Amino acid sequence: MDKKNINKSDYIYGRNAVFEALTKNVRKINKILISKGVSHDSKINDIINFAKNRGIVFQFVPKERFAGFADVNHQGIIAMTSPVEYTDFYEFLESKKEGFSRIIILDGIEDPHNLGAIIRTCACAGFDAVIIPSRRNAQVNSTVEKTSAGAINHMPLIQVNSLSNAIDKLKDNDYWIIAADAHGKDNYFDVDYTGMNFALIMGGEETGVSKNNLKKSDFIVKIPMLRNFNSLNVSNAACAIIYESVRQDLKHSV
Amino acid sequence: MDKKNINKSDYIYGRNAVFEALTKNVRKINKILISKGVSHDSKINDIINFAKNRGIVFQFVPKERFAGFADVNHQGIIAMTSPVEYTDFYEFLESKKEGFSRIIILDGIEDPHNLGAIIRTCACAGFDAVIIPSRRNAQVNSTVEKTSAGAINHMPLIQVNSLSNAIDKLKDNDYWIIAADAHGKDNYFDVDYTGMNFALIMGGEETGVSKNNLKKSDFIVKIPMLRNFNSLNVSNAACAIIYESVRQDLKHSV
Repeated sequence: MDKKNINKSDYIYGRNAVFEALTKNVRKINKILISKGVSHDSKINDIINFAKNRGIVFQFVPKERFAGFADVNHQGIIAMTSPVEYTDFYEFLESKKEGFSRIIILDGIEDPHNLGAIIRTCACAGFDAVIIPSRRNAQVNSTVEKTSAGAINHMPLIQVNSLSNAIDKLKDNDYWIIAADAHGKDNYFDVDYTGMNFALIMGGEETGVSKNNLKKSDFIVKIPMLRNFNSLNVSNAACAIIYESVRQDLKHSV
Repeated sequence: MDKKNINKSDYIYGRNAVFEALTKNVRKINKILISKGVSHDSKINDIINFAKNRGIVFQFVPKERFAGFADVNHQGIIAMTSPVEYTDFYEFLESKKEGFSRIIILDGIEDPHNLGAIIRTCACAGFDAVIIPSRRNAQVNSTVEKTSAGAINHMPLIQVNSLSNAIDKLKDNDYWIIAADAHGKDNYFDVDYTGMNFALIMGGEETGVSKNNLKKSDFIVKIPMLRNFNSLNVSNAACAIIYESVRQDLKHSV
């Protein structure tokens, strides 16, 4: 809940409003934050029970986390909502389509502008899905919706609890796993992206792809740096690789 | 002076501070805004004369333009500064280097985040310069500096009064001019970028490359769209084309 990126339309405040949203299922709820100091009346307990049953993440957080919401009557409870309905990962895997499948996996992207731009590029490039983890990654909020120029409505977005499990499952389903990393062995344009299903993993702005996910990858590709300055914006880096795969598909050559 | 993007460190306020900055040349001044209602005392007149002699743009604007600065004592005068010293266009043209030259021309980019990301990509790709017009384009301010991840200190940045004249001058200096446009004839990866100097023109987020500059271009390239969604972020589009030229250079093939 980075203060810089607070967009109040992505939150529901207060016991009654959060309870209504949970039980009436009006908007998708990603996470519920409950102030540690809040008194547990029956409504709070109902919310917690309901969230547990529905598998919605809730967290008890220090009241400082609510600092950006001083101007609303949040009563110590805030639900983080999403403008998007995520696609179910398993349903996605079962829905076979013509031709080879291309998806992107985001491993710790923090900036919602980067998330939006990547979703937008995936939409333009005809990718099949964007997978994000339910924690440690920007979630699809209204900033992402805006930066994506509406592409969130054109792209299946999948939220998973464990990227590691999702990668295993993708491998079981004949996907090759390609990670982007500054220390990769091959330049990204030396890999043949044609004739296979693949998932491209892009890592967080500061952290890169996690070590565990790098280990699971079939290829680790880098983007060559031609000046002593090693730092592409992650959405730009994603675009270079994504569109190289498009180029190869359209030209039938590496 | 879009309110959303006001970063107060990019401005100098008040008669004395603006006069000092102008005469002592501490920071580069891009433009001086003077409120139409301000009384013309000797200091204001000195500033105007000094700006005229130095060729610095000054404008008389309605006092509403100062709305975002209500919290500072601006006395009706604000100088817009830059964290960067621009490179002189003619000096750049005269400074010949080994190999072929690649530059980018930005024609109406509005978002400083996009400007920063493009400068960053140009630095990574070993491009030689970024040319921006002195009006109708985001200028290099501290938001751009931040988004560029410091790349503004690694890239020659050139500010010109007329893109049209700059393009003519580039043509005289053996540059090919390539514009990106959604209605381009060729896919960007079907052009051979090797073995020539070129300047790539990227247009504004809403407006694209201006008609006049399209007319002057030797190639107009498009990025193929694989879904019914036609809108790449401009910094991502720039990166796809820039890195295709890198790919061709490194692989010696189109």
